[in-house]
Amino acid sequence: MLIPPSQTQPMSTRELYLFDTMGLLRIPGFLSPDAVEVCRGEVRRLSSTEALGDGAKEKVEDLVGNSAHFAELAASEAVRALVEPLVNQPYRLIESYALRRTRQSVFYLHNGSGEVLHYAGDRVARRNMSYMHTFHDGKLYCMFVKVLIYLSDVLSDDDGPFCYLQGSHKANFAWFPDGDSGSPNAWVSETGNPRAALTRENFPSLEFVRARAGDALVINEALLHGSLQKASGGERILTALGFAPSFVTDWKRLDPRSDDIQRLGHY
Amino acid sequence: MLIPPSQTQPMSTRELYLFDTMGLLRIPGFLSPDAVEVCRGEVRRLSSTEALGDGAKEKVEDLVGNSAHFAELAASEAVRALVEPLVNQPYRLIESYALRRTRQSVFYLHNGSGEVLHYAGDRVARRNMSYMHTFHDGKLYCMFVKVLIYLSDVLSDDDGPFCYLQGSHKANFAWFPDGDSGSPNAWVSETGNPRAALTRENFPSLEFVRARAGDALVINEALLHGSLQKASGGERILTALGFAPSFVTDWKRLDPRSDDIQRLGHY
Amino acid sequence: MLIPPSQTQPMSTRELYLFDTMGLLRIPGFLSPDAVEVCRGEVRRLSSTEALGDGAKEKVEDLVGNSAHFAELAASEAVRALVEPLVNQPYRLIESYALRRTRQSVFYLHNGSGEVLHYAGDRVARRNMSYMHTFHDGKLYCMFVKVLIYLSDVLSDDDGPFCYLQGSHKANFAWFPDGDSGSPNAWVSETGNPRAALTRENFPSLEFVRARAGDALVINEALLHGSLQKASGGERILTALGFAPSFVTDWKRLDPRSDDIQRLGHY
Amino acid sequence: MLIPPSQTQPMSTRELYLFDTMGLLRIPGFLSPDAVEVCRGEVRRLSSTEALGDGAKEKVEDLVGNSAHFAELAASEAVRALVEPLVNQPYRLIESYALRRTRQSVFYLHNGSGEVLHYAGDRVARRNMSYMHTFHDGKLYCMFVKVLIYLSDVLSDDDGPFCYLQGSHKANFAWFPDGDSGSPNAWVSETGNPRAALTRENFPSLEFVRARAGDALVINEALLHGSLQKASGGERILTALGFAPSFVTDWKRLDPRSDDIQRLGHY
Repeated sequence: MLIPPSQTQPMSTRELYLFDTMGLLRIPGFLSPDAVEVCRGEVRRLSSTEALGDGAKEKVEDLVGNSAHFAELAASEAVRALVEPLVNQPYRLIESYALRRTRQSVFYLHNGSGEVLHYAGDRVARRNMSYMHTFHDGKLYCMFVKVLIYLSDVLSDDDGPFCYLQGSHKANFAWFPDGDSGSPNAWVSETGNPRAALTRENFPSLEFVRARAGDALVINEALLHGSLQKASGGERILTALGFAPSFVTDWKRLDPRSDDIQRLGHY
Repeated sequence: MLIPPSQTQPMSTRELYLFDTMGLLRIPGFLSPDAVEVCRGEVRRLSSTEALGDGAKEKVEDLVGNSAHFAELAASEAVRALVEPLVNQPYRLIESYALRRTRQSVFYLHNGSGEVLHYAGDRVARRNMSYMHTFHDGKLYCMFVKVLIYLSDVLSDDDGPFCYLQGSHKANFAWFPDGDSGSPNAWVSETGNPRAALTRENFPSLEFVRARAGDALVINEALLHGSLQKASGGERILTALGFAPSFVTDWKRLDPRSDDIQRLGHY
Repeated sequence: MLIPPSQTQPMSTRELYLFDTMGLLRIPGFLSPDAVEVCRGEVRRLSSTEALGDGAKEKVEDLVGNSAHFAELAASEAVRALVEPLVNQPYRLIESYALRRTRQSVFYLHNGSGEVLHYAGDRVARRNMSYMHTFHDGKLYCMFVKVLIYLSDVLSDDDGPFCYLQGSHKANFAWFPDGDSGSPNAWVSETGNPRAALTRENFPSLEFVRARAGDALVINEALLHGSLQKASGGERILTALGFAPSFVTDWKRLDPRSDDIQRLGHY
Repeated sequence: MLIPPSQTQPMSTRELYLFDTMGLLRIPGFLSPDAVEVCRGEVRRLSSTEALGDGAKEKVEDLVGNSAHFAELAASEAVRALVEPLVNQPYRLIESYALRRTRQSVFYLHNGSGEVLHYAGDRVARRNMSYMHTFHDGKLYCMFVKVLIYLSDVLSDDDGPFCYLQGSHKANFAWFPDGDSGSPNAWVSETGNPRAALTRENFPSLEFVRARAGDALVINEALLHGSLQKASGGERILTALGFAPSFVTDWKRLDPRSDDIQRLGHY
């Protein structure tokens, strides 16, 4: 294996507690510096497409289909040991990608347990079942768990750290009362209004996660999360492996205005 | 439309209450006698395969793909009016089939909210997320709702009525402690032991549902349900339309012993 | 002990399943015929007050305070074995009474998990926390469990059997949209309207429980329950022991119009 | 009114979101500096008892019974506006006290949604129903809400700020696997072992709350919370008003080893 994970221990009870209460868990040093180098090389070798947004962002799709090394990593015992205790049922890989971000790129806050979704026929949902955080009889049954692996340091606010609202993966209310108002890539909502800056003044429960190259961050997609705008130079590189129960389709954005009962799609 | 549903009213508050508490709802006279005749003709026109089991059972797969009439029915306002208030999110059709059953055929009790699932690597799940019954802010968010339409009368115990355990769609415990012990088609479990007969003595909370040709029965798949053995003559014909949130794949049985993170499958 | 319970076994897994899914559990022959005789004698010995309502009903309050025999029964291992696995936390006896009912007496449907409660200041609650049915990590945590012990046979509809709505202890909706509209003792609601008769036509999920003298019926008070009108002759006698977590006060009806933050009361 | 609260607005949707996700809500400037002075005077006027622990701590019991001013405050519209939207059912005041703390006093982490409770007969509970955080149909139904009013500034770590574990009011697991290991007043557990210091190294999800004299902090008692050791000079003064549904008794510590079904007590 060219990308051998350093992590070899099963998830501890306290790590489970942290994931359950915070909606994420950081595993420092999941990859060695050498493995990070290999990953970075693989990502740069693969062709990418420009992801839309206010800043520069390149996305490499289907890492696992395009790289035997990433396929091996995704199926490795070390990655499974991060996913299995959070999903606790037959599961599958539903997406794998890398993101290369440079100056000004942003991910605005998206998802969140109680947020409003508008869909076909002027209907509204307040639960997105595709990322439920559920517990039964001592085990978590999460619907969408993502393993992020950092390939560059994200240590200061300027590096565009991951951010989230405390406890939002179990929120009963919506933070954004009008719902998911646009792409996570933009500072302007679909209605054309500028969005509130990602600060503690605007979001009193906003938390930041710093990470070093090689760290893994396991997140529950139910978190209302995003990342600060990158202001520093250099590239912010990260790979993402998304897992879900085996009856869930590959990740594909739904057209929420469609009313076709044959259409696939996440929302 | 050759199969025009007779039902035109939206689901009432009390019908929602009944579905929420019982896990099912019967809609008498959903199809007129004429529409039932058309359906029966369509089902008999389509080729079927013999479903394995102790009794005679023929299954017609993919009704909607094979019959324009059933495709129209599945997308009709009347069927949607039964599904929409139970799923309350973008949804899709994940299966459509008909069953023709004659003497001795049976469906043993299967599913159930808290039942044990054994899967790859000696792991055990106590939640099957593919058929969760969930409620939030005045709305149900079900993961798998099936509309059964009766094409023959099932009035006596001899006709093999639908049966279920009261409240099993919200059970916190397992009725069968050793889990899903074999096919719903057989009176003998996977371990070779005969299964307990479907009686009130063996199952104190067992309930039966009688229905006439043309009735619809909407069920939450989380119910621990089956049907009595058919002892009467003639055919018991029924069509089934299964709906799930749009991120769920077409229904396909999972090989629970597989450990492949790329494999699709329900369990 | 003058009232020795016959039941000596701990609650089985299937009994737990039945209580969890049905909201009640019948224990046949909990008291021997001799013990039933003693109970009946004790109840008749104690002074009672007439309970208001459409039919004749006498209530004996505080059985445990007024009878050493009932005090012993309430604290017995056999009664505790029925309560402990349903409450699973420190608990106390919050009420004990007997009811003697003759012709025409009734208990209309009351309680229910999602029913509407109107209280002081035109406020409305949809949860009555005093009778939550909760589950965590393999155990039930119920807030109000009542052990009913039958001292006379209730075998036919004319005997006024206990009745309830299937699954109502976990209902997410309200059956009665305008809320708790009057005393369970009356056939006329507070607004002066006659109430719907307790039939399957009016309540499609209505279930009846027959019992013999000596049987115990353990119920979760979250059930939407009552009893049919008694039409037969003779007395219907029953004792009730109510248990709740230790931080709950003795049962006492709240004046819901009061807004005094020092007042005790159940609702 | 001698202690007139400055806060006059109803709780906003975003404040509800913050309370639901964080388990607490800070209301800056709930009392004016003048009102704080009156409160401080009242607290000092009332007799106190020394609370046991490692540091100096004086407790004034039953503020509301001993001071007409505090009784008026507890029943004021402003305090009710903090409690009502979190309890959403008839409620009562179950305790009121003040704490005067000087150097070295501590409150170790206590409560927490999934923590282990040992009680009579070697039994174990994993849910403390007396402080459930529950949501139904757009409303919170909390079992124990406490309004803390700061009468002195707590601005630095040395002042002994309130601390809690992120999301612990909804935790499904226990942070302390052996349960409630002693008094919140002590740095030594019941088993005689020193307890882990309240740092981010030991508790990665530990959060701190700074507050000024006059601020109110509304907390859900389900939080795993405490306060840092006070190292600065001067007094840290705070009043606490505890509210619960009306069927809950006045707060009184249960003897968890007692098995008396007549005993009251919180745990």
